[in-house]
Amino acid sequence: MEILYYLDIIGTFVFAISGVLTAASKKFDVFGALIIAFVTAVGGGTLRDILLGEFPVVWIRETNYLYIILIAFVASLLFRKYIMKLRKTLFLFDTIGIGVFTILGLQKALEVGVPAPIAVAMGTISAVFGGVIRDILCNTTPLIFRKEIYATPCIAGGLSYLLLLEFIGPMQWMVPATALIVIGIRLMAVRRGWALPKLK
Amino acid sequence: MEILYYLDIIGTFVFAISGVLTAASKKFDVFGALIIAFVTAVGGGTLRDILLGEFPVVWIRETNYLYIILIAFVASLLFRKYIMKLRKTLFLFDTIGIGVFTILGLQKALEVGVPAPIAVAMGTISAVFGGVIRDILCNTTPLIFRKEIYATPCIAGGLSYLLLLEFIGPMQWMVPATALIVIGIRLMAVRRGWALPKLK
Amino acid sequence: MEILYYLDIIGTFVFAISGVLTAASKKFDVFGALIIAFVTAVGGGTLRDILLGEFPVVWIRETNYLYIILIAFVASLLFRKYIMKLRKTLFLFDTIGIGVFTILGLQKALEVGVPAPIAVAMGTISAVFGGVIRDILCNTTPLIFRKEIYATPCIAGGLSYLLLLEFIGPMQWMVPATALIVIGIRLMAVRRGWALPKLK
Repeated sequence: MEILYYLDIIGTFVFAISGVLTAASKKFDVFGALIIAFVTAVGGGTLRDILLGEFPVVWIRETNYLYIILIAFVASLLFRKYIMKLRKTLFLFDTIGIGVFTILGLQKALEVGVPAPIAVAMGTISAVFGGVIRDILCNTTPLIFRKEIYATPCIAGGLSYLLLLEFIGPMQWMVPATALIVIGIRLMAVRRGWALPKLK
Repeated sequence: MEILYYLDIIGTFVFAISGVLTAASKKFDVFGALIIAFVTAVGGGTLRDILLGEFPVVWIRETNYLYIILIAFVASLLFRKYIMKLRKTLFLFDTIGIGVFTILGLQKALEVGVPAPIAVAMGTISAVFGGVIRDILCNTTPLIFRKEIYATPCIAGGLSYLLLLEFIGPMQWMVPATALIVIGIRLMAVRRGWALPKLK
Repeated sequence: MEILYYLDIIGTFVFAISGVLTAASKKFDVFGALIIAFVTAVGGGTLRDILLGEFPVVWIRETNYLYIILIAFVASLLFRKYIMKLRKTLFLFDTIGIGVFTILGLQKALEVGVPAPIAVAMGTISAVFGGVIRDILCNTTPLIFRKEIYATPCIAGGLSYLLLLEFIGPMQWMVPATALIVIGIRLMAVRRGWALPKLK
């Protein structure tokens, strides 16, 4: 679906910007910031491809990602002050990003022919592990293991997609429906301060 | 060998529980704990498969691992207090786990046809790198690089297995013999407080 | 080219020694030091091979690396005090190492047939990601994201190589020329205290 393609680009773009912001908060130099932007944007998809055995990995197959990240990188250096004020918009696009990445990861896994629960895991990994690798490279404990409702909407969206696929069959509207589930749960969670229970 | 299959399941189960305990000590939420359980249990085998080029990796090929980890995860949430009292039993099964994982990793590597020293390395990686990845995701320096005799028994067991294979040929009793070497050295090391020399 | 082969060995040797020195500063035990030596020496090439889908990875295909690292490891334990006095020589060989690793990574990527910018990235990853993985396993923020001009010479060298290849065609002298560019920029950067701008 063409809209999925454009949303993927937007998601990659916003993930890269969020990488630069994280690198800036760590006082990295420009090279460090570029790597963090890169890893945040394509790290999840890269890990998914490695685990599934799809080589070369996504950003080597399609060089577009490289250019999108470079543009996002330059843009976030040039318009840094402006971007800081756009946090709400960025948050929205980041949320769209995890929705889209979940679906793309899930579809990729289904193409390869893995069992359903693995496909849901692959969708979730695509969406959230870029952020995990980013946090590890920045030497901080991954945020999503502690605080945020971030992976839960991806898992819920992935499961919904599979259930729809199983009981209704492939339909055009299933992709936007799944994306809306991911995005809706995520927005609700942040607005209402939902959090997963912690272990003691 | 069938017994190896059941010991593999027990090892996976216990590794997953130890992951949950580590996540709890870091105050992770339930999603974080699930990921850490997962990574502790299958991280070593996953890294081995990636390095050897065996795709899709082990827990995608055999979904059983996924369910064992989920059961271990739920069990450790439900019976947390009880589990804390079982530390000695857990330690024993953890030690059985590294013994079994070493042999399975070694056999896998020999199947692929790598040279002997690489096969020993692959056995050791299968057994200990789940814990390394767990520690990295928890943002602590990997324990086995500093304190514990943990990898040494795996290396010793792997070398013994290869020597037996070379000079005596394949025999049924070699697998339990190797497992006993790994487990024996590990138990002795912990009981007597053995430690590798540190670098200054 | 034969000289590239020997320089690769020297680079691997020196990277392994630098790994042992880092592990010593972290008070790791001998097993930890061996792993860090290993990861520093072949981590970059391993990541490159995984991303490109070249399996089994480099040090499984060519066991030589394993022995070079073992020799470097033993040597750095035996002659530790002496090595500390050789820091300048080590630095020089480390710089030769990144030059050679950049070229080898680039050539490998071109063999696989990836687009030019990806090949430059692969050369740079081969040269610098061993150090990144070393730092992560030691639980410190990767040095090259913050302070040192380290990746920049690799990128410059990689781009030069590709430009020469495009406009002049393959020539024997291009490999030493590229190596000299990497080494020259790196030496100048360290001598003059060049650093990339930081993000705020």
